[in-house]
Amino acid sequence: MIILAEYQENSASRSITTPTMLNTPTGFRLKPLLTDIDSPADIRGLTIPELDALAAEIRDLIIRTVSQTGGHLAPSLGVVELTIALHYVFNTPEDKLIWDVGHQSYAHKILTGRRESFATLRQHKGISGFPKCRESEFDAFETGHSSTSISAALGMALARDIKKEAHRAIAVIGDGSMTAGLAFEALNHAGHLDRNLIVILNDNEMSISPNVGALSSFLSRKLSGKTMRRVKAHIEERLGQLSNVGENILNVLRKSEESFKSFFTPGMLFEALKFDYIGPIQGHELEDLIETFETVRDTSHGPVLIHVLTKKGKGYLPAETNPGLYHGVGPFDIASGKPHSSNGSISYTEVFGSTMIQMAMSDRRIAAISAAMVTGTGLSNFAQQFPERFFDVGIAEQHAVTFAAGLASQGLRPVVAIYSSFFQRALDQIIHDVCIPKLPVTLAIDRAGVVGDDGPTHHGVFDLSFLRFIPNLVLMAPKDEEELQHMLYTAVTLGGPAAVRYPRGPGEKVELAATLVKLPIGRGELLQEGDDILLLPVGNRVHPALRAADGLRKLGINAAVINPRFIKPLDAELICTWAKRTGRVITVEDNVRQGGFGSAVLELLSQHNITPLATCCLAYPDTFIEHGPQAVLWKNHHLDSPAIIGAAIKMMHRED
Amino acid sequence: MIILAEYQENSASRSITTPTMLNTPTGFRLKPLLTDIDSPADIRGLTIPELDALAAEIRDLIIRTVSQTGGHLAPSLGVVELTIALHYVFNTPEDKLIWDVGHQSYAHKILTGRRESFATLRQHKGISGFPKCRESEFDAFETGHSSTSISAALGMALARDIKKEAHRAIAVIGDGSMTAGLAFEALNHAGHLDRNLIVILNDNEMSISPNVGALSSFLSRKLSGKTMRRVKAHIEERLGQLSNVGENILNVLRKSEESFKSFFTPGMLFEALKFDYIGPIQGHELEDLIETFETVRDTSHGPVLIHVLTKKGKGYLPAETNPGLYHGVGPFDIASGKPHSSNGSISYTEVFGSTMIQMAMSDRRIAAISAAMVTGTGLSNFAQQFPERFFDVGIAEQHAVTFAAGLASQGLRPVVAIYSSFFQRALDQIIHDVCIPKLPVTLAIDRAGVVGDDGPTHHGVFDLSFLRFIPNLVLMAPKDEEELQHMLYTAVTLGGPAAVRYPRGPGEKVELAATLVKLPIGRGELLQEGDDILLLPVGNRVHPALRAADGLRKLGINAAVINPRFIKPLDAELICTWAKRTGRVITVEDNVRQGGFGSAVLELLSQHNITPLATCCLAYPDTFIEHGPQAVLWKNHHLDSPAIIGAAIKMMHRED
Repeated sequence: MIILAEYQENSASRSITTPTMLNTPTGFRLKPLLTDIDSPADIRGLTIPELDALAAEIRDLIIRTVSQTGGHLAPSLGVVELTIALHYVFNTPEDKLIWDVGHQSYAHKILTGRRESFATLRQHKGISGFPKCRESEFDAFETGHSSTSISAALGMALARDIKKEAHRAIAVIGDGSMTAGLAFEALNHAGHLDRNLIVILNDNEMSISPNVGALSSFLSRKLSGKTMRRVKAHIEERLGQLSNVGENILNVLRKSEESFKSFFTPGMLFEALKFDYIGPIQGHELEDLIETFETVRDTSHGPVLIHVLTKKGKGYLPAETNPGLYHGVGPFDIASGKPHSSNGSISYTEVFGSTMIQMAMSDRRIAAISAAMVTGTGLSNFAQQFPERFFDVGIAEQHAVTFAAGLASQGLRPVVAIYSSFFQRALDQIIHDVCIPKLPVTLAIDRAGVVGDDGPTHHGVFDLSFLRFIPNLVLMAPKDEEELQHMLYTAVTLGGPAAVRYPRGPGEKVELAATLVKLPIGRGELLQEGDDILLLPVGNRVHPALRAADGLRKLGINAAVINPRFIKPLDAELICTWAKRTGRVITVEDNVRQGGFGSAVLELLSQHNITPLATCCLAYPDTFIEHGPQAVLWKNHHLDSPAIIGAAIKMMHRED
Repeated sequence: MIILAEYQENSASRSITTPTMLNTPTGFRLKPLLTDIDSPADIRGLTIPELDALAAEIRDLIIRTVSQTGGHLAPSLGVVELTIALHYVFNTPEDKLIWDVGHQSYAHKILTGRRESFATLRQHKGISGFPKCRESEFDAFETGHSSTSISAALGMALARDIKKEAHRAIAVIGDGSMTAGLAFEALNHAGHLDRNLIVILNDNEMSISPNVGALSSFLSRKLSGKTMRRVKAHIEERLGQLSNVGENILNVLRKSEESFKSFFTPGMLFEALKFDYIGPIQGHELEDLIETFETVRDTSHGPVLIHVLTKKGKGYLPAETNPGLYHGVGPFDIASGKPHSSNGSISYTEVFGSTMIQMAMSDRRIAAISAAMVTGTGLSNFAQQFPERFFDVGIAEQHAVTFAAGLASQGLRPVVAIYSSFFQRALDQIIHDVCIPKLPVTLAIDRAGVVGDDGPTHHGVFDLSFLRFIPNLVLMAPKDEEELQHMLYTAVTLGGPAAVRYPRGPGEKVELAATLVKLPIGRGELLQEGDDILLLPVGNRVHPALRAADGLRKLGINAAVINPRFIKPLDAELICTWAKRTGRVITVEDNVRQGGFGSAVLELLSQHNITPLATCCLAYPDTFIEHGPQAVLWKNHHLDSPAIIGAAIKMMHRED
């Protein structure tokens, strides 16, 4: 199938022409390999040099595609060889392969029948940036949020045993995802159940400290070959007699390292949890990976963890150099590595970050907490300026909120900044640890509303519904970036639980406030008077509604527009007054209809015995929203100005 | 203050008269000690024998009180000495004491100014069974759900350091609570931050296996005295030279134990997480406890974990013998230990358990999952009959749901049975791992609605609001225990995500079905016709509404009554038809108003352009509901038959 006329094995002499060619074997090939790969079955007959060449082609395709579509470049470049080796050794899709988070699944998608559709990556109606069962039978489990893969793989393993089948369940999980409580709960249960289960720890931090690394290297390569079982047994026998080995272990015990991860690395925890630990393996050496996986496939029983070292961004120099920037990236220029310029507007996230600094300078009670999203939530500068009052807790949203409650109980005013869809992990902590005891914790809910290309797992369209019912919580959404400033100030000075939800992306280009103002709690603002209809938009839907009111006026329809500011408590007096006056109410929100803001308005009207002629709640329907640009999603789901105008016209006509 | 005429120190010769007197020192006392204890300051001058006598008096008060009020007897009896020692050594309330879960805080309450009000324990308007900041400044943090204490204590410790104060933060956490991901996230962060923090591991399982126990005992008592630091340093020095010690450690590493807990016990994990580990300490020996705590108080730096062994139910033989039964118990007879008889009705929980067995016998796909509540959720018999299809995952609600998703992805039909308020921990997993991929997982939501004496942390009054907005989920609530049977069958045969919520306590005493029927999805049942008003009760409010309809008929008001069965999808046709016909709609639910069932009906009417003359949603208001008997809470919050009649009359009059 493939003819390699000459393959240059000395990687040190590989020529680098453009960044995309970094580490690409430069031997002559009569034809590319990738165009013949429609399924993992097609790679199982290839030689190691051919697989290496294939890896280079996959990297090239990923870089070329993501430079145009944007996406999770660095994570996917880091696991190209790992992906090839897994599909080479294991009998996918019979064997179940689960990608934790799933943003590293691009090579997997390319190898499993989506090579040609890969150009549509993350595009509206195109393939998803995450595993999706409807896209391919090779996507064994849908992911998006972190740390679910071990739980899912364990469930698959148990189902297999109950059904007396024989396939393998394989979870591929990053070192960062291992810090979440969910992963720990799953490891604990897996060790207890003692079934065949493979966990691949994709360790791309490379920060293994010397002491632990020493033990790791002692245990690793010797045990990863075909002689694993024999050598391991041999070493185990002798360990008791060798005092210097005892010392090595003792050193690990006593000189324990900076963090959980470093302890974690040599496998002590996994062995204690009844996992067999193998590693670390070099994650870009196909021969090593394949040999290790084959050994595990053919000989292992019970749960096994294979520790694989990879380099984020591998094969594209800008991404290797700055894996953080290229973790998730927009379209960029391949040669220079520079992202194409954005529109330059300041984002809500940036305003949040600068306002936090502004507040912390004058109020020593302010502290900030992030769950492994320091840059994403705009807190990098805060972290630098106020290191004593900044806490990155890792991927641990539950702990983030309860830790904040502890700070607040002693008089601090912590602000927990987490994306809306990740706050779903902390509902109980918000209810139980913050709102029951009425502690002054502020939830800064970034990425509220649809987020765009990441799609349904990441859209923040439920937070109004899952926060609105919690007693003692004040819930706000700003109409623009200046109002965000005042709402944050209002929240931290409130003295009780507060939440501010704001969208991904740029603000409304309004001027920022130099002085922060405390907004009156539960008071909305009447932006425009009008007797025909009441528009009640919330958050980022206020400006579209104002534009709609302009459009309606030209049609002879006079719309009142209220910015409620507070989803909870609602401004009952203002809303009821204008609902009665107009008799027609349209609510608009970047959230699902069920239990959302519109629903709150309906409850309010019912409680006040107000029965308008007509009500209409513009919101997302009862379905998971697809991926696509925010503007497209707002348009398709009837949440933009033309849709508001259309709804108003329809309502006016219905009443005529 | 106290005069002990004679104190009999030989505990072996203590006479046992009644169960309450077990382990009570029988020396002569001129007056009891406890009546003079109004604050922990009052115990700090007592001698060890006096403290032992005090412990006996506290136990006696706890047993006598709980025998009348019901409550968490066994956990609280297990920590009497621990509680005394903590308040004796630490400067509470300056030092912050956090009781994980909090159901073991009875001795703490008695010692901190609530001795006299202790008779009102868990009674409506009486003191809570859990720590409450409004009750006492000694209740540093409110708890109820498990595994929050380390996060909270860490937050307090950081706040202290930021404010340059000097108090101690002390978390008391049980071994069961340690399995939750939240506790792990907190330990991981605490080790990283390296601040002064004390975690007391209250280990009451006593099931330490020999190997690990050997190392533990080697390390424990010698290190718990005042010479701790010196001895510890000495041992550390020599460990490297002693090959047999190396072997001991090696044995722990290699012959790792059955579960996380057994590894956990000797402190290796804690040491690796940068905690100093001390223990195990005998938790009923005041002298040892006090000496250890004083040493830690005076010498420790950074995070320290003290491992304390206690016996659940200590001092009351029936509770010691059966700590599970006496974990949470209703009123009982002290002499015999027998609980006072209940009304004998079969509970929803029991019907759930028997229906699970009924279904599993004919459907091999059915599996059941519990999160450390096997008996509480009625699954004990299922676990015995179908051990291969039953999984207790421990306190790990997140993992429970994602593990179920893994099972379901391979064709099984798992049922996850968890209390409503604990399902709050798994919202993200329900959305992300079950409902986005539309996997056939059934959520069995026990203890939905108010639960009674456990109060606000345990009331299940939010689930309709936090489940109703999730796309792809079918959500049901049965009007009685027979309908529960059919709903469970409907859920597991649906082929997609489903949830059934049902209340704590007895059913309606209806006959159970021998044959299970699949209910048509999204179809309610018209229970009664009537043209004046539509009653739309859900779940356990259906029967009160039927009784209300009877009462209304006698007043000349003809109410239609619909049992919607499905909160989602709603029976739009049936509800809209009767809403239009009557023009007046009253919804009733054992859930908060915000975003609940009534809110769903208002949305439905709005979407269908139906504007009744009046609507009224009977539900809990926007406040956390106090503890008290269910019937009292339903009455006080206007959810019983008289309240429904009242609302209907008011609505009819308003329209006249």
